[in-house]
Amino acid sequence: MITGKLITVEGPDGAGKTTVLEQLIPLLKQKVAQDILTTREPGGVAISEHIRELILDINHTAMDPKTELLLYIAARRQHLVEKVLPALEAGQLVFIDRFIDSSVAYQGAGRGLIKADIQWLNEFATDGLEPDLTLYFDVPSEIGLARINANQQREVNRLDLETIEIHQRVRKGYLALAKEHPKRIVTIDATKPLKEVVSVALEHVLALLLA
Amino acid sequence: MITGKLITVEGPDGAGKTTVLEQLIPLLKQKVAQDILTTREPGGVAISEHIRELILDINHTAMDPKTELLLYIAARRQHLVEKVLPALEAGQLVFIDRFIDSSVAYQGAGRGLIKADIQWLNEFATDGLEPDLTLYFDVPSEIGLARINANQQREVNRLDLETIEIHQRVRKGYLALAKEHPKRIVTIDATKPLKEVVSVALEHVLALLLA
Repeated sequence: MITGKLITVEGPDGAGKTTVLEQLIPLLKQKVAQDILTTREPGGVAISEHIRELILDINHTAMDPKTELLLYIAARRQHLVEKVLPALEAGQLVFIDRFIDSSVAYQGAGRGLIKADIQWLNEFATDGLEPDLTLYFDVPSEIGLARINANQQREVNRLDLETIEIHQRVRKGYLALAKEHPKRIVTIDATKPLKEVVSVALEHVLALLLA
Repeated sequence: MITGKLITVEGPDGAGKTTVLEQLIPLLKQKVAQDILTTREPGGVAISEHIRELILDINHTAMDPKTELLLYIAARRQHLVEKVLPALEAGQLVFIDRFIDSSVAYQGAGRGLIKADIQWLNEFATDGLEPDLTLYFDVPSEIGLARINANQQREVNRLDLETIEIHQRVRKGYLALAKEHPKRIVTIDATKPLKEVVSVALEHVLALLLA
């Protein structure tokens, strides 16, 4: 039985999700007694990390959009079964960096695959499990891409070869999802100073836990 | 536009599909002028071969049945788009060793996943493309497994660690499919001498090409 809570973290590239999480988790640990697990997609367990390598491999330029989607969904399934569900069943608070909404935004709005198909695949992989809360970090594509390009430490992967148009479609996809799921998804303006972004995210998480 | 024909080759492990194909193709080349492509699943193109390695990796014992299915379907999609469809569009006669029916037999009947889900995934991966003919090589599980065990050259992979019960369920799955699709799937008794099996397979292929 699931006694923990699942929070997912979403946003276009360069929204600063990872940085926000790094600051948010220690603050949260001071406030709540619950064990916290933070993990990411695609990856998080050995099999899913191997799938991640396959997706990001710079040599795989021939990858069809449906193949890409199926690999993300496969990685999601394995990560969920091996790591996320056991943590939720142990009563932990679980944060996943990217989950079901990424597929709809990236492979749906971004690549043009049919949304209903992606939702079917998400449902198949998760057995219908939905996040209790989704923090969506919203950033205009120009700002998001500028942040990525400024980050010299990050290695270039296959998906960075995409155009700004795709990034804009991804953001639109996210904004549409936020409109469709106003209870689950909170939109946070990620162009604000980091401290403020973290503080807003913290408030939403605490509101969920105290509800 | 597809002007070629697609023939798939199916059967439980140890049915002798590969050996039959090796003898069938040269005989066929003497009879027909068409270009022939023989390929296999999972694999056939670089991305799908990488997915194949992931599926068969002996270390991946934690793999969930739905993850496994999604990986097979991803490999199918890529192989179809990159290799099978271009050949069919060029008018070739294409043989695939394992295709949509393997998923229904192995992941459905074998692993207990829901048949309708597998059919949805097959349809998603193939955009509804069905084989013109399926040669199903039928063999009782005891004989099939005995043949595999006698084959010393073959490396043991993760899937060989399965029990005879699963192999029996796989065969039942195939027999049910053959009943459901009597026009597309021909059942060939693979316990007969190799020469006879090859000859029956050849007849069915020629009947399709001359139809």
